[in-house]
Amino acid sequence: MKIIECVPNFSEGRNIENINKILDAIKGIEGIKVLDYEHDKDHNRTVVTFIGTPENIAEAAFRGCKKASELIDLNVHKGEHPRMGATDVIPFIPVSDVSMKEGVSIAEKLGERIWKELKIPIYLYEEAAKTPERKNLANVRKGEFEWLKENIEKRPPDFGDKIHPTAGATAVGAREFLIAFNVNLGTNDLSIAKKIAKAVRFKSGGLRYVKALGFEIKERGIVQVSMNLTNYKKTPVHKVFEMIKSEANRYGVSIIESEVIGLAPMDSLIDVADFYLKLENFKKEQIFERRIWE
Amino acid sequence: MKIIECVPNFSEGRNIENINKILDAIKGIEGIKVLDYEHDKDHNRTVVTFIGTPENIAEAAFRGCKKASELIDLNVHKGEHPRMGATDVIPFIPVSDVSMKEGVSIAEKLGERIWKELKIPIYLYEEAAKTPERKNLANVRKGEFEWLKENIEKRPPDFGDKIHPTAGATAVGAREFLIAFNVNLGTNDLSIAKKIAKAVRFKSGGLRYVKALGFEIKERGIVQVSMNLTNYKKTPVHKVFEMIKSEANRYGVSIIESEVIGLAPMDSLIDVADFYLKLENFKKEQIFERRIWE
Repeated sequence: MKIIECVPNFSEGRNIENINKILDAIKGIEGIKVLDYEHDKDHNRTVVTFIGTPENIAEAAFRGCKKASELIDLNVHKGEHPRMGATDVIPFIPVSDVSMKEGVSIAEKLGERIWKELKIPIYLYEEAAKTPERKNLANVRKGEFEWLKENIEKRPPDFGDKIHPTAGATAVGAREFLIAFNVNLGTNDLSIAKKIAKAVRFKSGGLRYVKALGFEIKERGIVQVSMNLTNYKKTPVHKVFEMIKSEANRYGVSIIESEVIGLAPMDSLIDVADFYLKLENFKKEQIFERRIWE
Repeated sequence: MKIIECVPNFSEGRNIENINKILDAIKGIEGIKVLDYEHDKDHNRTVVTFIGTPENIAEAAFRGCKKASELIDLNVHKGEHPRMGATDVIPFIPVSDVSMKEGVSIAEKLGERIWKELKIPIYLYEEAAKTPERKNLANVRKGEFEWLKENIEKRPPDFGDKIHPTAGATAVGAREFLIAFNVNLGTNDLSIAKKIAKAVRFKSGGLRYVKALGFEIKERGIVQVSMNLTNYKKTPVHKVFEMIKSEANRYGVSIIESEVIGLAPMDSLIDVADFYLKLENFKKEQIFERRIWE
């Protein structure tokens, strides 16, 4: 069963009536399931998480984007979170039986359509980016709406050439599912958690798709390596876990436990079982439940 | 999502027309999905695997049983596989969000109904058995149709008291999902595989829900511990794997790989990941795909 997730961010976190109108526009598409939405007053921003198929996901995102462009005026918008558009970002996340290539293609087509029909210029980011620099959303959004309004010719959009006077610009992209994964260590020495975080994270020479920080969990007298795994297919959970185990061992520290915060795709954990059991030729089709959804 | 599996065995493996009539009777119930069926001429037997919900699964089993009783006459049936009824066995296997208690209750109600409406006597077996002896199907079916026809009063059914003149008797039960799991060892010494099989299997003092044998894989020059895990919830896959690892280590032999033959429930492998990652407080609801089916 093909499933793709979409997590658009809208620049409205206060006016509940308008938030509901945007949600209704998304829910109006048959087969779309809204899993979650969170709005934040300080950020003045709403994050919607919904799933669908490659056939209906872009239509739902378009409807949400269109509705937001009718309701939100960036010229009067204030909030703590950086933003450049009424619909600020639209990432697509392939979840099940959908390739990243397909995710990128959906992002590209939607970007083109938004410019054509709504006259909102589009920047493609993350896996959909046309240049390495634009992979990073922070580069695309630098200066926010206020800067872009005056300087869009200095940062030519991938679709369109003029800023939308009220809806600004939108970043559309594709990325892998992000897993929040923490490992708790049997020590109260924060420096060890920090050293291990440094050893495993990409930024400091570690694994390609790991972001990591060391924290103290004071009430338990232990420390934690807190991570975002940004591509569990290429840097699987067990690889991260084994590296932390090896680093912790170097300091004579044990792993007490690990935890997954929020959701994790089934495959990310099946891959762990596959690794430790040395499963040969195991196919995802052998998962009983998959036979049911198909 | 509640899912229960049913794997009835019918005493017909040669007459394709009749097999199809039985299949059609099962498929006729809305929401039932036939995953697989296999018929064997030598055994003269057909095994159907279908899934449904606690609401519709028994109705589909009943329809199949009724149709088989109209088409099959045990008095003229011959085949290598032991059997006592037109519908020989009907096991229910709770798969997802269904308890064994619920599975047993479904088996009991179906058994009662089959006797009432079709006059086929019923033996409850495995988890549904009323006595320890009847847990084992072999005890229930000993002597087959031919013996039961003359001696049913010596083995009183759980429902009914007379043999059905053509459809015989049926065993209805509930059991856990069975996982076929093999572990390949880095040696050509069959005696080591046999010793390890003996160490892990229940029969010889090993793990409660493990059946195991040692085999040679001649073409690869290695040996295998071939197993049936009859209750992965109580004897999880990693417990079996770790015990084999420890036993193999005792003989200085390494584990090359393991393999799952056929289907395995998602949870059986998630539990493995949970064990090796020491996942604390991980809930099955955190599996992304579960959010979709619900």
